[in-house]
Amino acid sequence: MALIVQKFGGSSVANAERIFNVARIITEKYRQGNSMVVVVSAQGDTTDDFIDKAAEINPNPSKREMDVLLSAGEQISMSLLAMAIEKLGYPVVSLTGWQAGFLTDSSHGIARIRRVNTERVELELGKKNIVIVAGFQGLNRYDDITTLGRGGSDTSAVALAASLKADVCQIYTDVDGVYTADPRLVKNARKLDEITYDEMLELASLGAQVLHNRSVEMAKKYNVNLEVLSSMERKPGTIVKEVVKVEKMLIKGVAKDSNIARFSILGVPDKPGVAFKIFSTLAAKKIDVDIILQSIGRDGTKDISFTVSNSNEQAALEVCNQMKEVMGALSVACDENVSKVSVVGAGMQSNPGVAAKMFEALAEANINIQMISTSEIKISVLIEKKDANKAVEAIHDAFAI
Amino acid sequence: MALIVQKFGGSSVANAERIFNVARIITEKYRQGNSMVVVVSAQGDTTDDFIDKAAEINPNPSKREMDVLLSAGEQISMSLLAMAIEKLGYPVVSLTGWQAGFLTDSSHGIARIRRVNTERVELELGKKNIVIVAGFQGLNRYDDITTLGRGGSDTSAVALAASLKADVCQIYTDVDGVYTADPRLVKNARKLDEITYDEMLELASLGAQVLHNRSVEMAKKYNVNLEVLSSMERKPGTIVKEVVKVEKMLIKGVAKDSNIARFSILGVPDKPGVAFKIFSTLAAKKIDVDIILQSIGRDGTKDISFTVSNSNEQAALEVCNQMKEVMGALSVACDENVSKVSVVGAGMQSNPGVAAKMFEALAEANINIQMISTSEIKISVLIEKKDANKAVEAIHDAFAI
Repeated sequence: MALIVQKFGGSSVANAERIFNVARIITEKYRQGNSMVVVVSAQGDTTDDFIDKAAEINPNPSKREMDVLLSAGEQISMSLLAMAIEKLGYPVVSLTGWQAGFLTDSSHGIARIRRVNTERVELELGKKNIVIVAGFQGLNRYDDITTLGRGGSDTSAVALAASLKADVCQIYTDVDGVYTADPRLVKNARKLDEITYDEMLELASLGAQVLHNRSVEMAKKYNVNLEVLSSMERKPGTIVKEVVKVEKMLIKGVAKDSNIARFSILGVPDKPGVAFKIFSTLAAKKIDVDIILQSIGRDGTKDISFTVSNSNEQAALEVCNQMKEVMGALSVACDENVSKVSVVGAGMQSNPGVAAKMFEALAEANINIQMISTSEIKISVLIEKKDANKAVEAIHDAFAI
Repeated sequence: MALIVQKFGGSSVANAERIFNVARIITEKYRQGNSMVVVVSAQGDTTDDFIDKAAEINPNPSKREMDVLLSAGEQISMSLLAMAIEKLGYPVVSLTGWQAGFLTDSSHGIARIRRVNTERVELELGKKNIVIVAGFQGLNRYDDITTLGRGGSDTSAVALAASLKADVCQIYTDVDGVYTADPRLVKNARKLDEITYDEMLELASLGAQVLHNRSVEMAKKYNVNLEVLSSMERKPGTIVKEVVKVEKMLIKGVAKDSNIARFSILGVPDKPGVAFKIFSTLAAKKIDVDIILQSIGRDGTKDISFTVSNSNEQAALEVCNQMKEVMGALSVACDENVSKVSVVGAGMQSNPGVAAKMFEALAEANINIQMISTSEIKISVLIEKKDANKAVEAIHDAFAI
């Protein structure tokens, strides 16, 4: 008799047949006596269709109006899913983001959840209703509709699970769990039964696109038990939690991210506060920076390089050019032709052989490393984009994960 | 420097080109210094598409979920219209029904507006924003989304105009005003410059589908100046108001309604309270009854006939069969093969020649009259559906409107 939050992505509800498949997954758990709250994304390509529709009218619409438009997508999918559950004979109610109490900040398009007021959801659960909730959307303090950005439905589900103190948050996707590498790239890739939040976080932020990293961060913060599983096949997925049973291998996975660009501001005067100025300006524009590299000062100048995701490329270029002028730097360089490949696994730092083994695998595959970044549980390298798949396979083989 | 409420229907915003046409109509008035509030329906066939989508999943979905689905339609059109206005360089904000303060009762699918809380709209007008508002939708006291039913956007516009004390409420349609008869049926049909609320009300409820009758009732009640005009052509339309300048003709128009069905409960015991029981039961089920005819009692029984719109046919049949059992009536008959044709004009009652002239025209056209109903400003007859167009033309000619 658990309280279960489930989340189904757009491909899981793309058409009537799939909607009924999802309805059956939900009602099966309900029939077993569980309280069910289900977060749903917009159907299949709805969001892209809306973006095209908007672009036809205004290539540069306000983010506020874009959020109004996009949030209609989940309103459609949630009501259709509710109708399917009605058809199967179960009590159900669908709620928009604002009805379900999702309060966010005002950053349209990339809003962050401030709080979930679960009063309405709990009221409906009290009436024994299956509660369908629109993912990806909320309301800001001015009563304007906001969206959380791509992948935001995962975050909606985890936030709701945390607020409701749900027993588990099940994220249904089109893969059946978290793998040691992309199974399409690496034939020996293996599904993990369990993984820690930190490892998942590194994998998520590294481009293993199973879970949105904000959702994993939130799950870690509020200790929400996550499970990643397939909506197509009925079998156990991967459980994400604080501590996992020890497995003999150290490395949990290899991931790549090719949707990045590297910027360099060259010939920056070697004075205190320069890095602060650059990165605080980027932060103010909500541009997430990943790897940062600063050359050692020489001739009174230094070079500062960093990577950002493709979607922030234009904004980052503007900041770089502005900084170049302000600081009297020499030039700005941008390279889109890069990929980041990483190995992830807890306890890596206390095991110096990992980095050496990774670099050896890359050297043997004749792949040049441009930048290196390490954390307690991962090692990332920036390489040429064309080498990315080869690198993933070489590293996976080297560690025999 | 007026406060203008405009309303654009689904065909006026069916595609990007038409959306820009509407955006130009709005911004032209705004540029002249007027405060603009614009009510918009869902694009073209969106509502029908949603109904099809729902039917594929559940032929009998709950009305609550249907309202959730349908209300996404205006959310799409209002944001696209706002984006077009942004593109033209004007300040604009779009608001859903609940954001714009539309509070309704809980009759999903046919909700009635209880109150419009205009705080948000006035706030946006104060910021000099053009305010786009989703028609057709509101919120009930449980924070559930409701819809007003087909044509409800007209009512939304009039309710908003009344609450804001707007100077005029302009209803843009695909015709350029109110005609003395359907111009597609009667070649001599003439556009009216002015018409009274009562006359418009009779025409609206009689199937001259220019304005939703609930919207005209509301305009009359709150004395809202209405104007019906075309979104395709820039020319004056028809103004609907309390008193119009006297025109020589008495008859304002001829209308027909073929979307009706006639029910008869035959052999009802001739006791007091019988009619009350039938019509109070119909009212409780929110079935609007139009013409009522009760035969004179004979042999201790009487026949009661009435007409309803097609959409209420199934529900009315159930009531009739139930009443038959309860009252011990003989049988129930239903005839869908009927049309109502009416002449409308103020002061008709003090001019007995009108009815005679109408009946003469029908007799000469060899059309049999099944039922007759009169009011202060109209005379309606029920005839066979196949004769409806012929009847409209014959009457229009007879009065030489």
